[in-house]
Amino acid sequence: MSDFEQERKRQDELEDQARFSKQFDIIDYTKFLELSLEERIEHFAQLSHTEAEEVFQELDTTTQAEILKVAEPELKKSLVRLLAPDDAADLLQQFEEEDRGQILALMNRLTRKEVTALLLYAEDEAGGLMSPRYARLRPEMTVYEAISYLRKQARRSTETISYSYILDDEQHLLGVVSLRELFTADNFQLVKEIMCTELITAHDHSNKEEVSKLFAEHDLIAIPIISEDHKLMGIVTVDDALDVIEEEVTEDIHKLGGTSALELPYLRIPFFQMIKKRAGWLAVLFIGESLTATAMQAYEGDIARAVVLALFIPLIISSGGNAGSQASTLVVRALALGELRTRLWFRVLMQEFIVGITLGILLGGLGFLRIIFWPNAIQVYGEHYNAIALAIFFSVVGVVTWGTVAGSMLPLVLKRLGADPAVASTPFVATLVDVTGLIIYFTIASIILGGLLL
Amino acid sequence: MSDFEQERKRQDELEDQARFSKQFDIIDYTKFLELSLEERIEHFAQLSHTEAEEVFQELDTTTQAEILKVAEPELKKSLVRLLAPDDAADLLQQFEEEDRGQILALMNRLTRKEVTALLLYAEDEAGGLMSPRYARLRPEMTVYEAISYLRKQARRSTETISYSYILDDEQHLLGVVSLRELFTADNFQLVKEIMCTELITAHDHSNKEEVSKLFAEHDLIAIPIISEDHKLMGIVTVDDALDVIEEEVTEDIHKLGGTSALELPYLRIPFFQMIKKRAGWLAVLFIGESLTATAMQAYEGDIARAVVLALFIPLIISSGGNAGSQASTLVVRALALGELRTRLWFRVLMQEFIVGITLGILLGGLGFLRIIFWPNAIQVYGEHYNAIALAIFFSVVGVVTWGTVAGSMLPLVLKRLGADPAVASTPFVATLVDVTGLIIYFTIASIILGGLLL
Repeated sequence: MSDFEQERKRQDELEDQARFSKQFDIIDYTKFLELSLEERIEHFAQLSHTEAEEVFQELDTTTQAEILKVAEPELKKSLVRLLAPDDAADLLQQFEEEDRGQILALMNRLTRKEVTALLLYAEDEAGGLMSPRYARLRPEMTVYEAISYLRKQARRSTETISYSYILDDEQHLLGVVSLRELFTADNFQLVKEIMCTELITAHDHSNKEEVSKLFAEHDLIAIPIISEDHKLMGIVTVDDALDVIEEEVTEDIHKLGGTSALELPYLRIPFFQMIKKRAGWLAVLFIGESLTATAMQAYEGDIARAVVLALFIPLIISSGGNAGSQASTLVVRALALGELRTRLWFRVLMQEFIVGITLGILLGGLGFLRIIFWPNAIQVYGEHYNAIALAIFFSVVGVVTWGTVAGSMLPLVLKRLGADPAVASTPFVATLVDVTGLIIYFTIASIILGGLLL
Repeated sequence: MSDFEQERKRQDELEDQARFSKQFDIIDYTKFLELSLEERIEHFAQLSHTEAEEVFQELDTTTQAEILKVAEPELKKSLVRLLAPDDAADLLQQFEEEDRGQILALMNRLTRKEVTALLLYAEDEAGGLMSPRYARLRPEMTVYEAISYLRKQARRSTETISYSYILDDEQHLLGVVSLRELFTADNFQLVKEIMCTELITAHDHSNKEEVSKLFAEHDLIAIPIISEDHKLMGIVTVDDALDVIEEEVTEDIHKLGGTSALELPYLRIPFFQMIKKRAGWLAVLFIGESLTATAMQAYEGDIARAVVLALFIPLIISSGGNAGSQASTLVVRALALGELRTRLWFRVLMQEFIVGITLGILLGGLGFLRIIFWPNAIQVYGEHYNAIALAIFFSVVGVVTWGTVAGSMLPLVLKRLGADPAVASTPFVATLVDVTGLIIYFTIASIILGGLLL
C-alpha cells in the first residue's frame, strides 16, 4: 500500500467515524450555544479526545477556528482531519491568509488539494459550498457493475451515494441516476439507458443563495455544480443549502430591523462590533429624521397659534410609519420567496394604493371618533374640536395611504437598482414617511382649520 | 394478482413517474408564481395530461385544491393519485370536512388508509408531516439479504432508501442503518450488528417546528417519528422540514413588520383578507399611539411657552423607536435560532443597557452638534439654543437607552409568558417607546430649560 493510499484509508476511517457521530450525536452540545467563546474553549478543553471529536463538528466555524488556535498539536491534527473538504474550506476562511498554510499542512495531500481549489471561490459563490467527493459512474457500466462499484466507492469519502453522476472521459456531466433507480433496474441494463439527462444544475460561479433556493423549489437532496464547459466540479447537498438559507434569512431580518447583519451569534459578538453594526444605520436614520425638525420650522407659526396641533404629531406620523412598515415587510418577503418580481410594480402600486386608502379610512375613523367622543372634548381640544377631528381624519387617510404606497414601492426600487430590498427596513420607511407625514398633516390642517384656528 | 396488489402496482408506477418528473422538471413552472389563482387555473386547463401531471406536483396546496375543484373526473383521479400520502393529507386540509370524502374516494385503498391516519394529527404536529412509507428491515437479516430486500422495496413507494429502519415484530424502532453502512459492511454480517441504536427521533405529537429545527442542527436527511410506546409511525424528510422552516420564517418576518402572518402568497391574497390581516394590528397600534396625544396634553403649557420644543418631538421619539426596533429584532432572531434562552435575560439586559447608553451618546452628540452648528441657530432656536442643544442631548441618551432596553426585554417577556416573541414587532416597540419617550423628553427639557424658557 503506497503512502498515499494509506493516508487516504486513514482519512476515510476518520470520516466514517465522523459521519457516524454526526448522525447520532448524543452529547448535548446545545448548551454550547449559550456559552461565550472563552467559556466554550474552556469547556472544550475538558472533553476527552473522542468527545472533543464529536462536539467539534457540531460547532460553527468561528468556534472551531478559536479552538484550533489553542488545541494541542495531536488533537489539532485529528480535528482538522475530521472535516469534509467543504467544511475545512469554510474553517480556513476564519484564519488570516498567512495562518492558513499551517492548517493546510495538517491535512492529507488529497484533501489539501481539494480545499485549496474550494478556497479560490468568492464567499458568495456556489463553488465554495460544493463537495468535490461525489459518486461517479461511467455510461457504459451495467447496473450490476454500477452497484458493485458504488459499494466500493461508499467506503471512500463520498458526500452522498443517493445520486451518482455519469461522466465521460473529460469529466463532462452526462446524466444522473439515483440509487433507487439503479436498485429497481435490471442488472444487465446499461447505466446510460436508465440515467436522466435533463437535470437541474448550477454553475460554480452562481450566487450561492440562488442555488440554495433551488433545493426548496424542487425538493432536491443534491445539485451538481458544473463549470462553464459543462464539467462536473462537485455537488452541493441540502444540508449546506439549509445553512445558507438560515444565514440569508437572518441577514434579511436584521436588515429589516434597521441594523447591519451581525455575522456572529447575538451573545458572542464583541461590544465594539455590535456598536459598529448598529450605530451606522441609527446615525443615518437620525440625520434623516432630523429633517423633521427642519420641516416643522415652517409650521412653527401654526403650532404657536394652535398648540393643540402639536398633540397629534406623534400619532399622525407613527400611523404612516406603521402602515409603511407593514407594506415594505410584505413586499420584501414576497421578493425573497420569489412570489413577486419587480416588473409587477404597477400591480403592487394599485393594490397597495387601495389597501392604503382603506386602512387610512379605518384608522382615520378611529382618530375622528376618539376626538369627538373624548370626555370634555371642548375643554381639551377647544371649541373647534369637530374641525380638529376632521383634520385628523383626513391627515391619517393621507399619511397612511402615502406610507403604504411608499413602503411597498421602496423595496421594488431598491431591487431594481440592484440593491438589497431588505434595506427598506421598518425604521428606514418610518423615517422617510415621517417628514412627508408632517407636511401632509400641516397642509390638511391649514386647509380645514384656516380661519378657525389658523 | 389480487385486486389489491394490482392497485398497488399501478400506484407504484404512477409514483415512480411522479418522482421522476419532480426531480427533473423541465417545464418552467416559476411563471405560475406570478399568476393569480384564476389565471393559474386557466393556464393549467391548457396543459396536456402529461404536462398537467408534471406541473401539479410543484404547486402549493391551495392551487392544487382549486385545480381539483374544476378538473375533469379522469384528470382529477390521476392528479390525486400522483401525491404521496403526506402531500395528499396537506391537500385535503384545504377542503371542507364534507368534501374530503369525495377526494379520498379517488385514492387507492392503501393510500386512503394512510391519509386518513395523517389527517388525525393537528396542523402543528410532526405526525402530520410524516410519510408512512419508509424502508424497514428485520434485525436478523444479513447485509446481503437486506440489500436484496431493499432492491425490492425500492420498487415500492418508499419515501427514501438512504436510511432503513430496523423494527421488531411489534413495530418498535430498534435502530437505523444507512445504505452506505450496508454497502460498506460485509455481506454476511447481521443488520443488528451494524445498526445504530442511538438516534435522533421525534414524537408524532411534537411540534413540527421543533422537529424541523433538528434537521438544521444535526444535518439530517430523515427523522423517524415514534409513538409514545416507541413504535415507528413514519419518517419526516428534510424537504418537508425546509417547507416548514420557510413558512415559519415568513410568519416571523410578517409579525416583525407589524402584520398578522399572511397564509397565502402576497399577490394571491384576497382583498378583504389582506385588510383583515393588516388592519387589526394597525388599529391596536393606533389606539396605543393615541396615548401620546393624552401624554402631551400634560405638556401643552410647556409647548405654548416654548414652541421650539415641538420641533424636536418626531426626532426624539423616532430615535427611541429605531433603537428599540434594532434591539427587539436581534433578540427575536437570536431566540428563533436558539442562540439565546430567556433565562439569560439579565445578561441581555446588562449588554443592551451598555449598548443603549453608548448609542444614545453617539446619537445625542449628533443632535447636539446639529443644533449648535446650525446656521443662524439663534434666529431659529432662540437665544437659549445652547441649553436646547443640551436638553436634546440628554433626551436622546435617555430615550435611546430606554428604547434599547425595552426593545430587548419585550421579546423575552413575551416568550416567558408563552407568547410568540416575534409579536414584539418594530411598530409595537416603537409605539411603546413613543409615549415614554415623550415623558422623558419633556421631563429633561423642563429640568434643563426651567427658568430659561419654561
